Amino acid sequence: MEQRISLITLGVQDLATSTAFYEALGWQRSMRQAEGVSFFQCGGLAFALWPWANLAADAGISPERSGVGGFALAYNTRTREEVDAVLAEVAEVAVLGAVIVKPATEVFWGGYSGYFRDLDGHLWEVAWNPGFALDAAGAVTLPE
Amino acid sequence: MEQRISLITLGVQDLATSTAFYEALGWQRSMRQAEGVSFFQCGGLAFALWPWANLAADAGISPERSGVGGFALAYNTRTREEVDAVLAEVAEVAVLGAVIVKPATEVFWGGYSGYFRDLDGHLWEVAWNPGFALDAAGAVTLPE
Repeated sequence: MEQRISLITLGVQDLATSTAFYEALGWQRSMRQAEGVSFFQCGGLAFALWPWANLAADAGISPERSGVGGFALAYNTRTREEVDAVLAEVAEVAVLGAVIVKPATEVFWGGYSGYFRDLDGHLWEVAWNPGFALDAAGAVTLPE
Repeated sequence: MEQRISLITLGVQDLATSTAFYEALGWQRSMRQAEGVSFFQCGGLAFALWPWANLAADAGISPERSGVGGFALAYNTRTREEVDAVLAEVAEVAVLGAVIVKPATEVFWGGYSGYFRDLDGHLWEVAWNPGFALDAAGAVTLPE
């Protein structure tokens, strides 16, 4: 697992209003045609707002467990196979307390992803997303 | 407020073990001499592990409120004055539901910082940290 973070997704209750807040601070969305999610390019990192219920369902966890304020970090891989490799790496050090929440599966947006929780319950998605370009250093560029 | 994120700080219960987990995945710490906190350089972003009780105290919030899994994003400014300007900008759109949690104050590590919560309670620190270099694009480089 390279030392980098691809996305931060904040769980939100009301996507339109939460999006309006970041826009009111002067931020501009990418991928405005995407429905049900708001993406913002932040340097080599992508920042996303997504209804918490959807995020919890995607991770296969109870939306009550983390409640309002839930979020996920994401590590995007360069290949589909690397998703399994990274989750295996996490499983190898599970003695420390990390937990595979959801083994990698095909996902509705055309990629392949799984989730783990670190020792404090922080959610990480490990995802292969062929639509989000990664440069050599791992910086993410959202599509138009 | 420029469209960028400077740090992600995850609240942790046991700093040594949580640090060992990320190190077990192959990540290497920066600023190893820093006590009570673990920093990792992730591209133009800094990733930090900090006991949740310290993070809650720094933000002036109850450690019970967000509990395990608490975290903060940070927006680092180029000048001390810009901290007040960004918090004022947030206050201007407070009608949307964001809350200034802690007005900017001098902080123990030599900078100047305040906190707000976005509409879903996600914690943001707005900080001027003269020790963490920002390049023209806003990428953060942790010191040696």
